[in-house]
Amino acid sequence: MKLKDLYSFLKRDLQQIEDQLAQSVSSEQTLINTAGLELLKAGGKRIRPVFVLLSAQFGTYDIHQIKKTAAALELIHMASLVHDDVVDDADMRRGRETVKAKYDSKVAMYTGDYIFASALKLMTDIEIPRAHQILAQGMKEMCLGEVEQIKEQYDTDQNVRKYFKRIKRKTALLIAMSCQLGAITSKADIPVQKLLYDFGYSVGMAFQITDDILDFTASEKQLGKPAGSDLKQGNITLPALYTIQRFPGFKEKLNLYYENGDETLLSDILKQIKRNGSIEFASAISDTYLNRAKAAASGLPETSARESLLKVADFIAGRKF
Amino acid sequence: MKLKDLYSFLKRDLQQIEDQLAQSVSSEQTLINTAGLELLKAGGKRIRPVFVLLSAQFGTYDIHQIKKTAAALELIHMASLVHDDVVDDADMRRGRETVKAKYDSKVAMYTGDYIFASALKLMTDIEIPRAHQILAQGMKEMCLGEVEQIKEQYDTDQNVRKYFKRIKRKTALLIAMSCQLGAITSKADIPVQKLLYDFGYSVGMAFQITDDILDFTASEKQLGKPAGSDLKQGNITLPALYTIQRFPGFKEKLNLYYENGDETLLSDILKQIKRNGSIEFASAISDTYLNRAKAAASGLPETSARESLLKVADFIAGRKF
Repeated sequence: MKLKDLYSFLKRDLQQIEDQLAQSVSSEQTLINTAGLELLKAGGKRIRPVFVLLSAQFGTYDIHQIKKTAAALELIHMASLVHDDVVDDADMRRGRETVKAKYDSKVAMYTGDYIFASALKLMTDIEIPRAHQILAQGMKEMCLGEVEQIKEQYDTDQNVRKYFKRIKRKTALLIAMSCQLGAITSKADIPVQKLLYDFGYSVGMAFQITDDILDFTASEKQLGKPAGSDLKQGNITLPALYTIQRFPGFKEKLNLYYENGDETLLSDILKQIKRNGSIEFASAISDTYLNRAKAAASGLPETSARESLLKVADFIAGRKF
Repeated sequence: MKLKDLYSFLKRDLQQIEDQLAQSVSSEQTLINTAGLELLKAGGKRIRPVFVLLSAQFGTYDIHQIKKTAAALELIHMASLVHDDVVDDADMRRGRETVKAKYDSKVAMYTGDYIFASALKLMTDIEIPRAHQILAQGMKEMCLGEVEQIKEQYDTDQNVRKYFKRIKRKTALLIAMSCQLGAITSKADIPVQKLLYDFGYSVGMAFQITDDILDFTASEKQLGKPAGSDLKQGNITLPALYTIQRFPGFKEKLNLYYENGDETLLSDILKQIKRNGSIEFASAISDTYLNRAKAAASGLPETSARESLLKVADFIAGRKF
């Protein structure tokens, strides 16, 4: 079973969203045009558009309208990835010829800005000021989340509350907004909008926790990067935070690793996390969020869209890699 | 005579805009909060808010509404400066400790994004979808302009048309939008909105050409950087383009400088530009735009706001440094 099989009936509509995305990132400016189209080709699960489309089914579904909202949400996601890459690339590219390096990151920077602006422009085609407000406010929150994440990097003294706040802003918010703005665009009833927001928020939380678990438990082949990469890069997620809280001495061990970068020590740390019950703990939290999502969905009208939302939620929160 | 003397009657309203700016950039996130407030403290002429306020006087002037539009335009300007700095800083800072360098540019990146989003959020408080559309579309154009500027850097084969297109996107557009959105927010008549847009556009063009002239003619003390910095950094502006077009051999000389970076050659090039009539040519073009701005303004109702707009236009387009 693949994710896209869960919403095969959306296939044609999703193609329209691809077309809308291509149209939005395209530009007479060759560099931006090329960069944008390459980003689109790189693909992605298009999770956010799927949530927009499914949520829009609870109101008056008009693909010509809703495709704009769906593409806008995906563009916000894409732009944030581009900006993440700018800063990371700038570091990785050291040693290359400088003007070239500068040139590249400049183009990437403004490509990211361009995609952000395109997202907002597209959203303004939906002439509902409240939708514009929600999107702009969401973007503010997401930026705060990015900075929080930088500040909390390598911080072994942080508590679990900070982690939840971080993943809310990093992931859950955009999925919650996807559901909410899908409902708003199709003029679904206010209580339905609210339920969909709650649903998206909880699914997003479960999704990110699952992602963070997999970074410990999946294989390098499945992840496309070595397991434990998050921890290595100072991104201290739920299983590690649980271990810090429960096992005296672990924090010191992790701090030691951050000081000396000893790979044997890292390997020892990762083994400990995988065996000490922290994975099970994090899974239970993820399940709690998934159940909250289902509880929210249970308040929605019993439609095939609701069935699909539940299936997608199960899939992305419960996936094994 | 100082710029601010031209609109002393706006003093209290401009203070309200400062307060609005502070409120918009402030955040519970300490790093973003500090970065934002430092940007505000660094000041600036607040040219864009002044144009917003003066333009709003042609409709129903409500400071509680218009201050939001004015602050939004200034925030867009600020955010674009922050992003310009990110990429430049990343280069200048080479040799510093890497994690720290990375940390800094990351924070600056997301601070810029945060300010962009804050601008859009503030604009959505004005519940006029067309205003949101104009702002988002303007941002797209500005991003294109940034990338054009990178692409055309050091390109001695570019024509004057490209220069005009570049400064339109870089400067004129945001000033045109300031006038237009001021008028839209205060619900001025459509023809007045159009005239104010045209006025702002022409003033912006004249302003940037003047700026580009001063980079050749003003002293290092006046500029805060050596004269000729634009040309040195590959930003080929009107006086240099005029020289390339009129004086055979000059292009080759400039190309040679870009290859060998010989400071004596640069000094020779700068002298030539200052003495060959290109400054007078560029001044005449700037005056043409200033006259177009005045022609647009002459269609506006005869009010003290119109007088102020004309005075500000004369001042910023005609300034000697």
